Amino acid sequence: MEPQFNKVSIIGLGLIGGSLAAGLKQRGLARWICAYDSDPRALVAGIEMGVIDESAESIKNCTSGSDLVILCVPVLSIKGALAELPDVRGIITDVGSVKHPVIKAAREIFGEVPAHFVPGHPIAGSEKHGVEAANPDLFENHKVILTPLDSADSGAVSAVEQLWKSMGAQVMKMTPGHHDSVFAKTSHLPHLLAYALVDMLSAQGDSLEIFEYAAGGFRDFSRIAASDPVMWRDIFKANDEKVLDSLDQYLEELGGIRNLIAEGKMDELEDLFKRAKIARDHFSAISEQSSILDGAS
Amino acid sequence: MEPQFNKVSIIGLGLIGGSLAAGLKQRGLARWICAYDSDPRALVAGIEMGVIDESAESIKNCTSGSDLVILCVPVLSIKGALAELPDVRGIITDVGSVKHPVIKAAREIFGEVPAHFVPGHPIAGSEKHGVEAANPDLFENHKVILTPLDSADSGAVSAVEQLWKSMGAQVMKMTPGHHDSVFAKTSHLPHLLAYALVDMLSAQGDSLEIFEYAAGGFRDFSRIAASDPVMWRDIFKANDEKVLDSLDQYLEELGGIRNLIAEGKMDELEDLFKRAKIARDHFSAISEQSSILDGAS
Repeated sequence: MEPQFNKVSIIGLGLIGGSLAAGLKQRGLARWICAYDSDPRALVAGIEMGVIDESAESIKNCTSGSDLVILCVPVLSIKGALAELPDVRGIITDVGSVKHPVIKAAREIFGEVPAHFVPGHPIAGSEKHGVEAANPDLFENHKVILTPLDSADSGAVSAVEQLWKSMGAQVMKMTPGHHDSVFAKTSHLPHLLAYALVDMLSAQGDSLEIFEYAAGGFRDFSRIAASDPVMWRDIFKANDEKVLDSLDQYLEELGGIRNLIAEGKMDELEDLFKRAKIARDHFSAISEQSSILDGAS
Repeated sequence: MEPQFNKVSIIGLGLIGGSLAAGLKQRGLARWICAYDSDPRALVAGIEMGVIDESAESIKNCTSGSDLVILCVPVLSIKGALAELPDVRGIITDVGSVKHPVIKAAREIFGEVPAHFVPGHPIAGSEKHGVEAANPDLFENHKVILTPLDSADSGAVSAVEQLWKSMGAQVMKMTPGHHDSVFAKTSHLPHLLAYALVDMLSAQGDSLEIFEYAAGGFRDFSRIAASDPVMWRDIFKANDEKVLDSLDQYLEELGGIRNLIAEGKMDELEDLFKRAKIARDHFSAISEQSSILDGAS
């Protein structure tokens, strides 16, 4: 069978870029994979591991003649990377955790969002970082959200969809705004709440002792506060409006619960706990089906 | 070796009471174990499983002649159980998740806290419920907090301490108020935050879809929202003042973070994330040492 792509360029060779390269190689989906990263050590490692065929010293050199360019840089670096791609005729996609700033950046750089640009977001990750942790099966049984505009070329959208399906992922489409709203609530807000709790506890005079007694619930809750601070700072900057919306909604919810406890309305509190338990058990059943892995953003 | 206790009474034969009975039996720590539970089926199961020697139809019948009475009923039921124990000369202890209401109840019933009453809280639990899930090793490598008053009989305190050590637990002592303050922050507040998030999401019009896209962070965060609603309602009622204190502190912390995002102070947000990550990684190292298990309250 012919490979789906002739030359694939991967811009940003970290865990996600490296896993994509490894997955493409393992499945014979690309004849040639070139990568660029601002850190030359990542490129050396990628060559040594055999996940890429060639490293380039600039984005332009890397992407020249590519029929697919995948931007795997942090979400706030996507605009800078897009600015290097005016001559690319091949399909362009990305893996950023927030989608509307990517669309906005493309519009600012190209005047309008190019028809061959298909923004994407694989819901996968790992506790590990860097190309050294690359895993060709990282996306297997994970969801990938694509957020192409109506003006996108349908052939380009199909090609990106096929790429992810070949990686074993389940592909879904939605608008960039809806994507950012859903992930503000289900991913960005929970991370913020966990960071806030751990920061509050660590500021206590007796914080060492507090952590010593912290039980199971706290550990689960706080695990996500061990996520990469710089990556999350960028996500909150990129999705600030949607995050503030859901944070305000949460502050209202929490204020309501505060009143129930202060006023001793324990039956209402129990009803709320029961509702939450039912919803959570339902989520649990869904997520077991789709086996979403840890560490996803 | 002689058993430590002649007759032990267990009031409330659920997961904790049943695991205590099973642990006492397996280690030969009691000649005779009698249990009482408001649900006769639990007693039948306890006899069939061989974790207790005798079941009683009332607390008085059960505790008569006991040299140790362990109250394993929900925290708000401890007062009612204590009221049945005026004639008990043996040591009394309990396993409630909140300690000052237990002290207060003892004072109201007995005039002063009896010298032979040694309140306790094993930091252990399980996703499972009921005597059927009893596990003789449930407390192994777990912490148990004892909160005896200064007026407590030192022999009684030592005996309860020895009992838990025999079960493989690590015993610590603190005042009831300090216990309730520490657990408000590290256990009760995280549960409240998780319940609030899941309730907020489940109230969204598109909640089914939201749960479908929810990623790893949310699952960790929300697992504790699957905890028993009635047990948690009682914990929040029993520890309302301390919970409100830590909730107010958290609302302030979260308000501060809201301002950082709204004002675009991303460097400060990153600093906060970094502090939290360091504290969390530190906690992670501690909790691996002491291997605290899931489901503890």
